[in-house]
Amino acid sequence: MTVVCGLFLERHGDRTSEGHVTGGKMNLKALQKLGYGMYIVGSYQGDRLNGQVANTVFQITSEPPTVAVSINKKNLTHEFIKATRVFSASILHEATPLTYIGRFGFWSGRDFDKLKDTNYQRGVTGAPIFIDHAAAYLEAEVTQDVDVGTHTIFIGKIVASEVLSEDVCMTYDYYHQVKRGKTPENAPSYIAENKGGTKQDG
Amino acid sequence: MTVVCGLFLERHGDRTSEGHVTGGKMNLKALQKLGYGMYIVGSYQGDRLNGQVANTVFQITSEPPTVAVSINKKNLTHEFIKATRVFSASILHEATPLTYIGRFGFWSGRDFDKLKDTNYQRGVTGAPIFIDHAAAYLEAEVTQDVDVGTHTIFIGKIVASEVLSEDVCMTYDYYHQVKRGKTPENAPSYIAENKGGTKQDG
Repeated sequence: MTVVCGLFLERHGDRTSEGHVTGGKMNLKALQKLGYGMYIVGSYQGDRLNGQVANTVFQITSEPPTVAVSINKKNLTHEFIKATRVFSASILHEATPLTYIGRFGFWSGRDFDKLKDTNYQRGVTGAPIFIDHAAAYLEAEVTQDVDVGTHTIFIGKIVASEVLSEDVCMTYDYYHQVKRGKTPENAPSYIAENKGGTKQDG
Repeated sequence: MTVVCGLFLERHGDRTSEGHVTGGKMNLKALQKLGYGMYIVGSYQGDRLNGQVANTVFQITSEPPTVAVSINKKNLTHEFIKATRVFSASILHEATPLTYIGRFGFWSGRDFDKLKDTNYQRGVTGAPIFIDHAAAYLEAEVTQDVDVGTHTIFIGKIVASEVLSEDVCMTYDYYHQVKRGKTPENAPSYIAENKGGTKQDG
């Protein structure tokens, strides 16, 4: 044990025979402290359009402007992005009704047409932009897809983006704390919430 | 032109000879609407420790619990993560002083010891955990690194995580709007802000 910083004791973990770290405290509630926005990620294939709620859309480089999104392999939107290599992300504002989020987050596009009775616009990529509750949107062309087990991270170069309103955007935390929203089973954060002590996509 | 949804006109973009989408509206201010938290990402190499501000830490799968972070290749923390294949993320609370963020965000660990006079603890991975203003932390072992040009996305399996307080966590938007924080040149969102109408890491 070595004194570090004059205050704390070094406590490097043990290593397995393969050299992996083991023996760390594991409170998955910590993952709920990560910050996200709330988005509807859209894509299409042929005449079929779909969109799903996602919280993991983030900019990864500025030159060129590039974003990434983590999508569950079971989802119809995953199938569409794989096929057409394009996606949109509509950035939801804080006043988005729970029913709207539920429509896109807790149902599969395989079971019913989520876009019926909603307003959308086809973007330059052909992906639907969900304008009913979007403060902004972006469209991207996939340049890489990264297999991360249950999900694929799609990395995309921005080909279009626009601000639609100056409304405050919804955070994932606001959705949970204020809107009392839940997390679907196919979300990156599903198990963390269940295990830690709370469930997202569709 | 086809009528879609009874309200909007289809406006698929043109394609280049290589098949890429072109002709989309490009207002990069839209990227500023994406939601993030505020983190200090730490790593080490030999006796040297470092940490840098990052806004792109996000959970990508729940089973196993996996996170990703986008780090500029020029940064010392990038060099350390490449070398030791581990990183920590300390999740900052809303009351974190701008001077603290500035120390880790606007300076390089190559120029001075950022950890001097701050409280940190070595985690099970050996990476420093910055406990002065963290509501929670996580530690990860890198399982994949994805080259995305100026940055690398490090994908890591969580090996430790803990909640330190119930303080509200800082969002990137709060940092900009309320704290009037700026964005360093090596951040994923740097150019977007400059071009769009505003500058992050270190």
